[in-house]
Amino acid sequence: MEEKKKITRPRAPKTGDKEKSGGKGKAAAAKQQGTRQGQGGVKYARRQTGFRAPRQSQKETAPAVPLHIIPLGGLGEVGKNITYYECNGDALIVDCGIVFPDSDMFGIDLVIPDFAYVEQNVQKIKGIIITHGHEDHIGGLPYLLKRVNLPIYATKLTIGLIKNKLEEHNLLGQTKFVEITPRRSFKLGCFSVEPIHVNHSIPDAVAFAIASPAGVVIQTGDFKIDYTPLRDDCTDLDTFAEYGKKGVLALLSDSTNSERPGYTATEQKVASGVRNLFHQAEDKRIIIATFASNIYRIQQIIDLAVENGRKVAVSGRSMIGNTEMAQELGYLHVPDGTMIDIDQINKYPPEKVVLITTGSQGETLSALARMASNSHRNVKVGPGDFIIISATPIPGNEKTVTKVVNGLLQLGADVIYENMYDVHVSGHACQEEQKMMLTLTRPQYFLPVHGEYKQLKRHADTAASLRIIPPKNIHIGEIGQDIILSRDSLKLGSPVQAGAVMVDGLGVGDVGNVVLRDRRHLSEDGLVIAVCTVDGTTGQVLAGPDLVSRGFVYVRENEELMNGARIAAEQALDHALARSNRYDWTSVKAAMRESLSSYIYRKTKRSPMILPIIMEV
Amino acid sequence: MEEKKKITRPRAPKTGDKEKSGGKGKAAAAKQQGTRQGQGGVKYARRQTGFRAPRQSQKETAPAVPLHIIPLGGLGEVGKNITYYECNGDALIVDCGIVFPDSDMFGIDLVIPDFAYVEQNVQKIKGIIITHGHEDHIGGLPYLLKRVNLPIYATKLTIGLIKNKLEEHNLLGQTKFVEITPRRSFKLGCFSVEPIHVNHSIPDAVAFAIASPAGVVIQTGDFKIDYTPLRDDCTDLDTFAEYGKKGVLALLSDSTNSERPGYTATEQKVASGVRNLFHQAEDKRIIIATFASNIYRIQQIIDLAVENGRKVAVSGRSMIGNTEMAQELGYLHVPDGTMIDIDQINKYPPEKVVLITTGSQGETLSALARMASNSHRNVKVGPGDFIIISATPIPGNEKTVTKVVNGLLQLGADVIYENMYDVHVSGHACQEEQKMMLTLTRPQYFLPVHGEYKQLKRHADTAASLRIIPPKNIHIGEIGQDIILSRDSLKLGSPVQAGAVMVDGLGVGDVGNVVLRDRRHLSEDGLVIAVCTVDGTTGQVLAGPDLVSRGFVYVRENEELMNGARIAAEQALDHALARSNRYDWTSVKAAMRESLSSYIYRKTKRSPMILPIIMEV
Repeated sequence: MEEKKKITRPRAPKTGDKEKSGGKGKAAAAKQQGTRQGQGGVKYARRQTGFRAPRQSQKETAPAVPLHIIPLGGLGEVGKNITYYECNGDALIVDCGIVFPDSDMFGIDLVIPDFAYVEQNVQKIKGIIITHGHEDHIGGLPYLLKRVNLPIYATKLTIGLIKNKLEEHNLLGQTKFVEITPRRSFKLGCFSVEPIHVNHSIPDAVAFAIASPAGVVIQTGDFKIDYTPLRDDCTDLDTFAEYGKKGVLALLSDSTNSERPGYTATEQKVASGVRNLFHQAEDKRIIIATFASNIYRIQQIIDLAVENGRKVAVSGRSMIGNTEMAQELGYLHVPDGTMIDIDQINKYPPEKVVLITTGSQGETLSALARMASNSHRNVKVGPGDFIIISATPIPGNEKTVTKVVNGLLQLGADVIYENMYDVHVSGHACQEEQKMMLTLTRPQYFLPVHGEYKQLKRHADTAASLRIIPPKNIHIGEIGQDIILSRDSLKLGSPVQAGAVMVDGLGVGDVGNVVLRDRRHLSEDGLVIAVCTVDGTTGQVLAGPDLVSRGFVYVRENEELMNGARIAAEQALDHALARSNRYDWTSVKAAMRESLSSYIYRKTKRSPMILPIIMEV
Repeated sequence: MEEKKKITRPRAPKTGDKEKSGGKGKAAAAKQQGTRQGQGGVKYARRQTGFRAPRQSQKETAPAVPLHIIPLGGLGEVGKNITYYECNGDALIVDCGIVFPDSDMFGIDLVIPDFAYVEQNVQKIKGIIITHGHEDHIGGLPYLLKRVNLPIYATKLTIGLIKNKLEEHNLLGQTKFVEITPRRSFKLGCFSVEPIHVNHSIPDAVAFAIASPAGVVIQTGDFKIDYTPLRDDCTDLDTFAEYGKKGVLALLSDSTNSERPGYTATEQKVASGVRNLFHQAEDKRIIIATFASNIYRIQQIIDLAVENGRKVAVSGRSMIGNTEMAQELGYLHVPDGTMIDIDQINKYPPEKVVLITTGSQGETLSALARMASNSHRNVKVGPGDFIIISATPIPGNEKTVTKVVNGLLQLGADVIYENMYDVHVSGHACQEEQKMMLTLTRPQYFLPVHGEYKQLKRHADTAASLRIIPPKNIHIGEIGQDIILSRDSLKLGSPVQAGAVMVDGLGVGDVGNVVLRDRRHLSEDGLVIAVCTVDGTTGQVLAGPDLVSRGFVYVRENEELMNGARIAAEQALDHALARSNRYDWTSVKAAMRESLSSYIYRKTKRSPMILPIIMEV
């Protein structure tokens, strides 16, 4: 019935007519023409032999082929994006990201997806296709590639960023890379995949139209729609519309900004905002912090520096690495003589310098944080500095950013932060852009992705409000769900193994809930160790019990408390030993723990971890 | 010269003329008339004998009397507000708050001011005057009153809240309370203090005009200007203006919202927003979370419940306590038969119930968080619930609020949160209101208070932009600074002891930096204990070394690692013991620590705390 509805619904021919008569949006049309010229022949050929013709005929005759979409991350969380697709025994993976740990994941460096299901199905997987080069889409690759060898399909800049990452892990050279380009489809088993250009806060971002025997699925990756981007084209609305016309089985779309009404402002707004600030800075040195991956923003700052006769230095490991790579690959255009080394900045008068730095999130060890705490090797911040933080704090980072801003202001610098001026725009689509994507692609099924549950829910509500997708065809998925789509149904299969694996130092997955619970307990009230040596045959206490504590109280100022605790432990020990001749050390330790714990709680209302240790000789 | 400037500046007579001719703002005038009637006589008498006449004459003849203003908290931080005033050997304290711990203060329950300077000067202090009953203004009182006995001057509701607090600490009955009322001055030594009504997110909030022999200082407390508050008057603009006309030495004003342009919206906006939501809820049960101290908001919800024929239940300890007290004291008006016990709510149909609850900040153990995790005793949330979070997350609480929202949505409830509708307004003045306060009071000196450095700085910039206070008379203070004001100068004396004291359980100040550093270390990588028993005379190892670890790795799955570590510890021990006959246990332990630490780091890139323990028998 859904199928029938789809075939007969009136909008497809209507959009088609519009397209043919050249009636499409002017901005989009103007933007696209330039890039399309010269590709028409290739495109036409592809389209003749591509997925669409077979799909049309199959639709009418063959039984429904099931397509499995299994999100292995990115749902119910912001980050760790990874989606598994399988159809007719062939599989592919879209993205492979990390997520940064929650504040209650003590000591954890980062969190990666559970790759068990990928490993189990490695024989079927034809490749990993990557939407763009942000950590939440590529950060998990080194960990996955340590376990399985799969080719990676990505655009040029994205490959550059992935290679940098693999190099850090000494994994370079083992992996096959295939460079992909928007509007050029490639085959992966029974899948045919077309990358579609999208705007985002990093160049070379793409969505994917994934054609399978079951139908076409569009996965947007992270996107926004910017009609006037800097040195780039607008999101390829035409191609999304064309897929919409021909029929899209499902859309998986970015939910990050689904709580924000309206549109994300254009990057041009930042350009004019920052231009004004360059003038406002007058003869001060300009220090500007932004994301190292936001090559557009960096380009814009370099352009303004050139315009204002300022030299540019960069600070921060990732900023240096990314600007070098982006220049080599042709994504960053810097006139000769513009860049100077950070060691050189003090040789120029302040009004001749712009310093681009990391640390826009207040990260503790970042270049900007070191400047704020007056501990940067080359840069001493003072009243001669005009500092722009060209980013908004990611939820959870507000306090660290505030700390950095306070520090810089106290050193006497002018600081432009948060909503003071238009110095940042989001890289993600707001509600109206999400509606546009839904309207252009008109999917039969809609799966909001990339977001906490509340964001997915809002995106689902937005989709429902358009009345083009029946509510029962809008599905808020969960990681590990096997979503089985065919041209007339969405069913759920048995869930697969999926989840979070914590990385701590070199350890991947060796910190679990027991260890985390202990770390939390230790962090709250510290620990008290009661240690003694006992003759195993006579039960005579040879030494101790002595108490050792860490993170509990300052022992020198709390001798009375610690002495009382020691006596409590001693009495419990003597009592337990006296009770029996068969020395059950477990229950002796339990008695000591109980006695110490209740004494300490009575005196302090605290519950440190209590560790009784009995050495038997 | 400043003095001369002040006397000759034209605005005072001008404002005066305006006042006499009835030209003041209509809204303010209309609001004030009602409350002023009947108090005119008292006021007149007071004003004849008050501080103003002597000050006028003194100004021309006597030498400048110094007034010391010493902020002991609330500057460079949000919370822990407390200010010490001293003049001619008499002193008073304004407010005594707490601040909640930063996320890096592991295990700390709350942070109070360092009271050392108060204790040193207790003989001079005539009383503690309180602006309003929020934690960041009264929460430190139990801790201060355990150390010194001082009378407390506060408005009726504020006294009620303080008494509840002292009762929790078993301190009730020892403290003298004096109930104060706006527009009625009271004497404290050489000070005369007039409380001035202000709007805030709790009833009975006041600013103070503190008249001293050196001049009048106005401390606003927390305030905003609401021309159309619910069941209350607008901030008493007239009285601020009158002080401004007569001459204000210094203004200490609320900087909380100094980064926000414009005005804080009226509470009426929330009223109409919530009214709409009551209609939108239709036949669902309404659950609404807000701050337990926001009696206005609670009143508004009760009014709407009555209007819509719903019964009201309250949930959460502080919500129950505050609504009971506010009813008793006449601040909350509830028609008979409106309130029902929470145990009764399931006996009414959903469309007949409103549940007011705590937990608007996503606090882990709050009623709303328990509902979200499906562990509330009385309330099972489901698709029949319409939940409104009538608050915005305080910076740092975004993630906990998100967790609660996700949980409630997943249970199928409708959830209205953050900026979805007008369900919350701030309690603090935005930039335009701050300008109004500065313009009305026209202080000679301006000290922004209540805020992080960045907020104080923005408030200072706002003040400078008005061009009524010379920039050199705008001072961003620090806690512990002795700010010495007289009618023609602002000087800084020697700083006094001030700072933060951490409270953990019953311990006040017994957790210092060493203990916190240990807690942080333990939280990151856990600990490894190496324990052994050694014959003190022969140096023979009788038992061990054994390793015990917590929060490091899951031992059962890492036997090889732990075994290697044990061998490393054993070798280091044997080597250290073999080197010498005189057993220097400190260096033996250092050798074990070093060896274990480097083995573990090499294998795991982690640095757990290493604790070698040697039992000598």
